[in-house]
Amino acid sequence: MLFLDACRFQNHSRPPAWIMRQAGRYLPEYRQLRETYSFVELCTTPELAVEVSLQPLRRFGFDAVIVFYDILFLPEAMGAPLEFTEEGPVFKRPVRSLADVDGLHPPDLHALDPRKGTGAILETLRRLRADVPPDTALLGFAGAPFTVAAYLIEGGFKRSGDRMKRAMYEEPRTVHRLLEQLTECTGEYLAAQVEAGADSVQLFDTWAGLLGPADYHEFAQPYERAVLARVASTGAPSILYVNGGPHLLGEMALSGASVLSIDWRMPLPTARSIVKERVGLQGNLDPYALFAPPAQVRTQVASVLESLRGDRGYVFNLGHGILPETPVESVEAIVETVRAWRP
Amino acid sequence: MLFLDACRFQNHSRPPAWIMRQAGRYLPEYRQLRETYSFVELCTTPELAVEVSLQPLRRFGFDAVIVFYDILFLPEAMGAPLEFTEEGPVFKRPVRSLADVDGLHPPDLHALDPRKGTGAILETLRRLRADVPPDTALLGFAGAPFTVAAYLIEGGFKRSGDRMKRAMYEEPRTVHRLLEQLTECTGEYLAAQVEAGADSVQLFDTWAGLLGPADYHEFAQPYERAVLARVASTGAPSILYVNGGPHLLGEMALSGASVLSIDWRMPLPTARSIVKERVGLQGNLDPYALFAPPAQVRTQVASVLESLRGDRGYVFNLGHGILPETPVESVEAIVETVRAWRP
Repeated sequence: MLFLDACRFQNHSRPPAWIMRQAGRYLPEYRQLRETYSFVELCTTPELAVEVSLQPLRRFGFDAVIVFYDILFLPEAMGAPLEFTEEGPVFKRPVRSLADVDGLHPPDLHALDPRKGTGAILETLRRLRADVPPDTALLGFAGAPFTVAAYLIEGGFKRSGDRMKRAMYEEPRTVHRLLEQLTECTGEYLAAQVEAGADSVQLFDTWAGLLGPADYHEFAQPYERAVLARVASTGAPSILYVNGGPHLLGEMALSGASVLSIDWRMPLPTARSIVKERVGLQGNLDPYALFAPPAQVRTQVASVLESLRGDRGYVFNLGHGILPETPVESVEAIVETVRAWRP
Repeated sequence: MLFLDACRFQNHSRPPAWIMRQAGRYLPEYRQLRETYSFVELCTTPELAVEVSLQPLRRFGFDAVIVFYDILFLPEAMGAPLEFTEEGPVFKRPVRSLADVDGLHPPDLHALDPRKGTGAILETLRRLRADVPPDTALLGFAGAPFTVAAYLIEGGFKRSGDRMKRAMYEEPRTVHRLLEQLTECTGEYLAAQVEAGADSVQLFDTWAGLLGPADYHEFAQPYERAVLARVASTGAPSILYVNGGPHLLGEMALSGASVLSIDWRMPLPTARSIVKERVGLQGNLDPYALFAPPAQVRTQVASVLESLRGDRGYVFNLGHGILPETPVESVEAIVETVRAWRP
């Protein structure tokens, strides 16, 4: 399988390709389902989540299928009431004190209702395992402790990370206690996803790029390492993603991830020179580049592929999730270009 | 003067210190004035703007005074109606087409009303020149073309830069025409600020960190260079600031700025090793670090100072503007630590 070969630095063929958020709003067939079902219904009804997860595979023939769900179902299962609003997810009781943290509890992953949040996702993975072709990877995922803690402390989606960063300096004990709780649950959760059939899992530490190196060492990396060590104990390879993190790349290479997924800010050869051949690399076309005409998209994809020609540990992807308004033609241009590529 | 010595790589004493947004909401005396006057009134009434600009100097004795105003008064003077709302500045007619761009015009900087927007700021600088002590630098500033274009295209303050980045790929001609217009005005504007009395000027390309290197080369750097070349023609040193731009630092060093102002993401010694001794460095304490107790602030400031001990081209600052809720005690801790520092 191209994807697992690349994770193990043993891919001699063209790079495998998939796209973060490849199942979702830019697809007409997804938008059609959304006319009938809410986002939460699509995530937590296994037959629907299976359908949505497979839509991009059917249309484009990607080399990986990623399960359709949201990283915030795990903290919800830990006891943080969650609502998906028009503007994004909101935690009705943001975590602001030690007592709030102690009110959270690890969910029993083996006793979950398979038609609710976290449990549904494991059931979806089990069903996908049967449907995904053997040459295609099945991927699970979770939010990293720092990033999920930021959502819990902010109370919802705010790009600034304002409350999280204040809390790190004002109440470091509370923040660390929260991070510890999340770490244990996240590690077990990803291990359960592997057990349910995932070939590999991606850990999204999307917000860690807000941190300078010292804060990354204190508030993000130790927790990433612990989660990724738990994944490694299952034997499955793991991917670590950080947005806005080129300054952290050398450190990320020591996190224990098999593959680092990087944003569009750093050219892949520069990234390769920093991480050496310790880990695979995934990325890194700018999602906004997909708003250019298809011919230009092809050129840009070819340029990304050319930049790591012959690299045995490389997975093509975007530098961040695909945007909802992206033209489908641009994704076709990606897939055609990657499939025609000869290393 | 410590500040100008550092800009010229000739400072043998302790580093000079000032803080981005040092005049503003974290100061009780500023908040008191805001009870009577709007933000726009404070910016555009020279006697009030002088008072606000001098408040941090009186309280803390910084080594530089920066004129109090907003980077968006320049595009307003070019013909883009601007409103300051509770959430931030909004352009009532966002720039979305070539016709919109061609509707903008360079303001005649020598025929401006000294009690309105852009004109008031030049008048404020002239008055400050008389009040600022000879050992303290007087600084002007402007937004860089990319960053101001992003505001004009977004229509207001949105951290995502979503519309700007789409426009770069969908309508590059429109974007470049806008950037060209802004470049000429910005260069002349900063030259006029120097003529009005500024010892140095800072160019804020705050949003350029959203760009990968290729896009930075196309949409930001050529315009920064042209503006900074116009400043250089006056003989005054210049500072270039980018937020989230550690991946661009090597390129920024070739922009023509005398000093690069960097955010908290990259340790100063790493930055120094990248830019060599070509340019000065300014920064880079994380503004959120000021929410720690004063003793910890002192330790962190000392650690920043220690990291570039003996560097002759270094200016202490934060890595981004000071936050409105910052305790005044933290700023006192900064100033005390820097003033007691011996190189």
